[in-house]
Amino acid sequence: MLRLYIGNKNYSSWSMRAGVLLRQAGIEFEEVMLRFDSFGEGSRFKTALAQVSPAQTVPVLVDEDFAVWDSLAIAEYVAERFPARQLWPQDGRARARARSVCAEMHSGFSALRHHCPMNIEALLPEAGAQVWREQAQVRADIARIVAIWTELLAQHPHAEGMLFGRFSIADAFFAPVCMRITTYALPVSEVAEAYMARVRALPAVRAWIDEALGEQDFVAFDEPYRTGRG
Amino acid sequence: MLRLYIGNKNYSSWSMRAGVLLRQAGIEFEEVMLRFDSFGEGSRFKTALAQVSPAQTVPVLVDEDFAVWDSLAIAEYVAERFPARQLWPQDGRARARARSVCAEMHSGFSALRHHCPMNIEALLPEAGAQVWREQAQVRADIARIVAIWTELLAQHPHAEGMLFGRFSIADAFFAPVCMRITTYALPVSEVAEAYMARVRALPAVRAWIDEALGEQDFVAFDEPYRTGRG
Repeated sequence: MLRLYIGNKNYSSWSMRAGVLLRQAGIEFEEVMLRFDSFGEGSRFKTALAQVSPAQTVPVLVDEDFAVWDSLAIAEYVAERFPARQLWPQDGRARARARSVCAEMHSGFSALRHHCPMNIEALLPEAGAQVWREQAQVRADIARIVAIWTELLAQHPHAEGMLFGRFSIADAFFAPVCMRITTYALPVSEVAEAYMARVRALPAVRAWIDEALGEQDFVAFDEPYRTGRG
Repeated sequence: MLRLYIGNKNYSSWSMRAGVLLRQAGIEFEEVMLRFDSFGEGSRFKTALAQVSPAQTVPVLVDEDFAVWDSLAIAEYVAERFPARQLWPQDGRARARARSVCAEMHSGFSALRHHCPMNIEALLPEAGAQVWREQAQVRADIARIVAIWTELLAQHPHAEGMLFGRFSIADAFFAPVCMRITTYALPVSEVAEAYMARVRALPAVRAWIDEALGEQDFVAFDEPYRTGRG
């Protein structure tokens, strides 16, 4: 039995990658939410998480008694455990490219992450416009993301319109970025807008968004731009 | 033919992971160093790199005409291309755990990275002592790293004394941390010191260190604590 420990769906971009991947792939799992209170020692969140994983971050996938942490390691684990789902592209070079862009997402784009934290329920176009004007590195991050999407979509034309044709781990990895771009109304190309619309329409993403909207928590340390839920 | 593009061996911790992995695994490759001048647009480094990869970071592995970027994606690519080298542990759970700790390294430990940038030729015990006193998050990063090593070494006893018994991608991923701990003389347990000594004694790590010492560049933006060499 697989159990996935996640943070708040509204805020936890790392959790979203794993949650969307498992659900869109049709893998059965139980979901356990550890709601954010704070990341300090002794917080409810950290105390509960310490029971599950030594790494102190969500998401964590527990397979029977074995914990796999970090969104990318979870993706690799699930891809190996369910080979028939073809969660990585089957072609070797496409698979390598998918891993490159997922790893790039995994360790990079820190300006976008810092200035535009995921906040699915919020609409913050004014904060987004200010960030866009003032933060050249955010503009560079978005330009690079749009370039990745544009190149991959052109190389892998397919009715599903995902980055490598059919849905793959790469789409799950970029789903939180789609949420950020929407929340902060960052300007992107038509090709990127259309891809984002397709990602938002994936059943697993729609379900994640619906559940995020239902949470109605306000986590102050993830809210640089709001003082409360409006 | 494989070609690995790297930054300065003295400073580039991401490059070190890939370089040590390929060399220690006995994989033939050509190495191309793109020396750091700055990371600004139009810098010599970025201009040369743009010819090789759109991601604008080192390392990049080029296989014939195909570029694989990011240290973790390179590791996965090489593990797939040379399965006989067994670069990931063969046991499924050990492999999953290796990916968890590599991914944790890949996206985490930002305090250690920020305050103790890799600088193989430097000995900075005073800067290290000040960081250790003032930066609780650096102490937490080191505690977590030592806990990872201690648990894995106990679980996988082996004459080679690597994290998963024999040398694997995980050891290549932690090699730069061994360099940082040495440069800044950060206090770690005897078990950790002994592991670091074994890592430093790996032929590929010794060669990397020797070549780093031979560079004799001074890259100011990677030098928060020195004003010059020597």
